Amino acid sequence: MEMNRQALLDGLQEFLRIPSISTLPEHKPDIRRAADFVARELREAGMRSVHLIEGEGNPLVSGEWLEARGKPTLLLYGHYDVQPPDPLEEWKSPPFEPTIRGDDIFARGASDDKGQTYILIQAIAGLLRARGSLPVNVRFLIEGEEEISGHHIESYIQQKGRGIGADAVVICDTEMFAPGLPTLCIGLRGIVYTELEVTGADHDLHSGIYGGAAPNPLQAIAEIVTALKGRDGKILIPGFYDRVRPPTQAESDAWSRLPFDEKQYREKEVGVSELTGEPGCSVFDRTWARPTLEVHGIRGGFVGEGAKTVIPARATAKISMRLVADMDPQEAFEQYSRYVVQVTPRGTRSKVTLLNSAGPSLVSTDNRFIQTAAAAMSEVFGKETVYIRSGGSIPIVGLFDQYAGIPSVMMGFGLPDDNLHAPNEKLHLPNFFNGIVAVTRYLEILGDL
Amino acid sequence: MEMNRQALLDGLQEFLRIPSISTLPEHKPDIRRAADFVARELREAGMRSVHLIEGEGNPLVSGEWLEARGKPTLLLYGHYDVQPPDPLEEWKSPPFEPTIRGDDIFARGASDDKGQTYILIQAIAGLLRARGSLPVNVRFLIEGEEEISGHHIESYIQQKGRGIGADAVVICDTEMFAPGLPTLCIGLRGIVYTELEVTGADHDLHSGIYGGAAPNPLQAIAEIVTALKGRDGKILIPGFYDRVRPPTQAESDAWSRLPFDEKQYREKEVGVSELTGEPGCSVFDRTWARPTLEVHGIRGGFVGEGAKTVIPARATAKISMRLVADMDPQEAFEQYSRYVVQVTPRGTRSKVTLLNSAGPSLVSTDNRFIQTAAAAMSEVFGKETVYIRSGGSIPIVGLFDQYAGIPSVMMGFGLPDDNLHAPNEKLHLPNFFNGIVAVTRYLEILGDL
Repeated sequence: MEMNRQALLDGLQEFLRIPSISTLPEHKPDIRRAADFVARELREAGMRSVHLIEGEGNPLVSGEWLEARGKPTLLLYGHYDVQPPDPLEEWKSPPFEPTIRGDDIFARGASDDKGQTYILIQAIAGLLRARGSLPVNVRFLIEGEEEISGHHIESYIQQKGRGIGADAVVICDTEMFAPGLPTLCIGLRGIVYTELEVTGADHDLHSGIYGGAAPNPLQAIAEIVTALKGRDGKILIPGFYDRVRPPTQAESDAWSRLPFDEKQYREKEVGVSELTGEPGCSVFDRTWARPTLEVHGIRGGFVGEGAKTVIPARATAKISMRLVADMDPQEAFEQYSRYVVQVTPRGTRSKVTLLNSAGPSLVSTDNRFIQTAAAAMSEVFGKETVYIRSGGSIPIVGLFDQYAGIPSVMMGFGLPDDNLHAPNEKLHLPNFFNGIVAVTRYLEILGDL
Repeated sequence: MEMNRQALLDGLQEFLRIPSISTLPEHKPDIRRAADFVARELREAGMRSVHLIEGEGNPLVSGEWLEARGKPTLLLYGHYDVQPPDPLEEWKSPPFEPTIRGDDIFARGASDDKGQTYILIQAIAGLLRARGSLPVNVRFLIEGEEEISGHHIESYIQQKGRGIGADAVVICDTEMFAPGLPTLCIGLRGIVYTELEVTGADHDLHSGIYGGAAPNPLQAIAEIVTALKGRDGKILIPGFYDRVRPPTQAESDAWSRLPFDEKQYREKEVGVSELTGEPGCSVFDRTWARPTLEVHGIRGGFVGEGAKTVIPARATAKISMRLVADMDPQEAFEQYSRYVVQVTPRGTRSKVTLLNSAGPSLVSTDNRFIQTAAAAMSEVFGKETVYIRSGGSIPIVGLFDQYAGIPSVMMGFGLPDDNLHAPNEKLHLPNFFNGIVAVTRYLEILGDL
């Protein structure tokens, strides 16, 4: 297969230079630029009817090629929005100036998900350039709200329903289990992301004058957080684990055969002296098959240089729960909310707000779209494809299943050390190029069935 | 006594307009302006040898009048630095634009401590203007690092030692127990102010991919904080209470006679539905005679608008302890540090830094300087003076005792609802004017002994 690697890299870098951070309102114009970039690339690839679908949030980018009569139709999904880059000072090169060091390209969005979205686009572009046609029908649907769990694509899928006009969806937004090991992700955790606000006195107080008698909202947040999750990693919300479906024995056995060095994971990938989490659970259990509860930020009081002896009137925390099959986000949020009220310390009031949520998903391996993808990946990477889960959340997988009734094929080309959502995010360039080949082969094999 | 109230107010407002925030380096020029203002006022009051004492930190302002032969010498203490005004949005009028509403003047530093420092200066100015001389000798020592527990005045007192040339120190930096109730503060809590840093993984992590296995420094801070202090307000550091000296029965009895409405305190002064703190302890015990531990700020992770699914690599908290007689700051810090290590969750590392500390103090009422002050206050306010303690810390009280061997007379004219260290700090103007009269009468009575 012919590839102009420099041209591919140039295009990718142009994409990565756009700071399309969906969570920060001041980047709205960059969101628009990124959507326009994707539309232009789709047109150049040879897609028809390329257009932006405007709606309540950031635009979806759509394009299609539907001339493979009698062949299946794949919906190709990616997202053009990215996470914020902070803490900025920890980046070795600026997050929006893509920089190649060794075999990796470093930039916010390199792996999640601009690089992988670009793999899909360029696989199609290459096929059309080489053959003048595609072996199967494709529809692109690239969104700009993945990192904020926006509702635009949800409304779109809900509205289209079974008339979405595709037999399966290909999602390039996950990772390979290990370098060179072809991987299909078949399970994802859901999420319930909340903000907890705690108020105490009706104004900030001097800790000398009032300390000992006045409630402290920061202390209260600490008490609520430790009431939510024990030191052993077990979530203490009543009923929270009731619906958790354990992995099958076959799946657990397959996980135990995965190439995994816990010491390496702990010391190199996570970079920590000791892992935490529930005792008696493997790392796979803890990150793929068990729910977790995490505090993402706490704000309140004085955090500047030096000392201020204040008892703040108010403090907030961002707290999320990851859910596994068969937990229900609505039910989990209600259990959480009820319990927070119960464990709120005297003298303080708490309020929880749901910022976003998504259900967990578990895709059956028993269909030709998954099995063909496994075959294509095996062929390109020269190893048997493994089925894994991911601890992350890709809400649209559940939505495609629920509303459109089509399975998701999660072909991922990221790597575990890609620093997603963290400083120095990267994409391994051999995966970028092999990813294009793998997607190409997937369509070819699927077209030959 | 003649008073040009408008001129006094004009001078006070000029003082209050200077944003001399000692904890913020960008306000260094304002610190200098405030010191110069004090020096100018001392010169205009008739003080001799007025000058700034330069040293390792912000200047001390010194001035003296020593012509009352055979009479005692008072050292008059105040501070010209102030706390930061944040959160700014909660001020009804700008913190550095003094605004009179009703009987109060609102500004950062109005009560703590520019207003009270100005009381001392104007009492002396008035006496010299009216009599051409003072009934006792005075030395002013006005500092600019009280809010940051700077070491300049400490070095000065240590260096001068018994040669400080004063028989007692008058400190105007406390409050009256109730409006119109003359009050002398005889006890102060000490402080140990620390910063706690907790690190987990060596980089920020995605909570989906790693949540459940990776340590979370924010969770760790919550666990450490709740290990330090129980839900009942009891500090759990081993040995922490060993040196706590309970108040005498006589002192406890006197406290029980103070005009105090706990419902009013709770609902109006603190503004809270329920007080916290150790069971079985009165509010006076909890804020005056018992140590406390408070979290002043927690920083880490994502606290912007929206959602970011990060497990931060690092988080920090500002944590202080208030100490009572006979606790030792060094020992308390060591107990705290050792215990933090013990309760740091697995997978995380913690580091504590001492930002500042001061010992507790308890002044004997058995001397003429205290007793004369009580008499002067009683005369001016028309009620018997009460002896109280304060939960706050004024480190120099301990230093004057330890190094110079002189007692501190804490004549305070603040009120409990002055919003110290909080938005809408104020000074009750009748207290401002009566304070000037009370200090004047104190010097007159002392000169007649």
